[in-house]
Amino acid sequence: MTRVRVDLNISLDGFMTTTDQTPENPFGEDWGRLTGDYVATRTFRERVLHIADGSGTTGVDDAYATRYFEELGAEIMGAGMFGLHQHGDDPDWRGWWGEEPPFRVPVYVLTHAPRPSLEFANGTTFHFLDASPEDALAHAREAAAGADVRIGGGARTVRSFLAAGLVDDLHVAVVPLLLGRGENLWEGLRGLESGFAVTTEAAESGVTHVTFRRGGRQG
Amino acid sequence: MTRVRVDLNISLDGFMTTTDQTPENPFGEDWGRLTGDYVATRTFRERVLHIADGSGTTGVDDAYATRYFEELGAEIMGAGMFGLHQHGDDPDWRGWWGEEPPFRVPVYVLTHAPRPSLEFANGTTFHFLDASPEDALAHAREAAAGADVRIGGGARTVRSFLAAGLVDDLHVAVVPLLLGRGENLWEGLRGLESGFAVTTEAAESGVTHVTFRRGGRQG
Repeated sequence: MTRVRVDLNISLDGFMTTTDQTPENPFGEDWGRLTGDYVATRTFRERVLHIADGSGTTGVDDAYATRYFEELGAEIMGAGMFGLHQHGDDPDWRGWWGEEPPFRVPVYVLTHAPRPSLEFANGTTFHFLDASPEDALAHAREAAAGADVRIGGGARTVRSFLAAGLVDDLHVAVVPLLLGRGENLWEGLRGLESGFAVTTEAAESGVTHVTFRRGGRQG
Repeated sequence: MTRVRVDLNISLDGFMTTTDQTPENPFGEDWGRLTGDYVATRTFRERVLHIADGSGTTGVDDAYATRYFEELGAEIMGAGMFGLHQHGDDPDWRGWWGEEPPFRVPVYVLTHAPRPSLEFANGTTFHFLDASPEDALAHAREAAAGADVRIGGGARTVRSFLAAGLVDDLHVAVVPLLLGRGENLWEGLRGLESGFAVTTEAAESGVTHVTFRRGGRQG
């Protein structure tokens, strides 16, 4: 049965975006610190960086990285995560991920300016929808055909699905640093834990994995 | 050698105070949820509630509760934590804790309206100081005579010591619930982790214990 999943890295103070980008350093240093333990996993290296030489960490962080890609049938993301905020005027823009996007499933991009779908050879297809969270989810569920649907980001997209009660599993990797500014995942979500079983697991890296699972269902 | 310590329960979204108090329920329900796993420990029951019948949890949460009281030589707290915001006009007010305050060491209460010191039979003495964090700490260090000084609370007092770089060890028990409002421990502390070794440990209860230790010093 389809579960709707969210999977994120956040700082100890709840921020999921960084603010220290400069023209010289377009990701900023904070982004590297926020995602460093995830990027260091064997799974991320193989699946996203296409480095399949057996390098990378294989501990608790990697176990969660593996789950990130398991049983996924479709993904939903905001326009910003596809790059439309910067490149929406370019009809030939094909997203950030090059010719091997790591999704390999249908991806629904929420935008007020839909465009034709984009197909990639590895199974990733981007569809562009001007739709409510509920309607987008209906499309993604149908495409997933019983596999899971992931809400990929960004912050406002994730919060809108969480606030609407549409998410079954929320996994956050809490990284022990304080960003102090940016988009806060937890904003407006007082009492979210109600109806979820919450479990925590500390990784060797110092990252804490917190999982909210609706109804305490076994996974 | 004296270490300056902070030891707190916070919600997953960083809040250390609760906002749902009513005349009928003067602590509110959130306070019980925020402190429940700590209050359930054998150490808290013995040391604060004076229930020494061997009841209470004895896992990871209790190990941290034990450390809370170890090697303590003096404590510093804000006026609100002693109750002066509600009872400052009452010259006979002796604090919230009855005749056996759990500190058993000199306690320095920061207030703009100092009053005579108060002594209790169990070794607790409250001194009232109108002083900067640095000056209050100098008094507390001298009283502690090599043992540790704890900054007890509330939120603004703790943040002022953290922001001034005066804290050596920060331990937070992160409770998996979202309060959404109140005083946020992390406010204004971007980059705090710099200069600290940060470790995390998950308790059986679902609480995550995060420890910032200056210079990675062994404890």
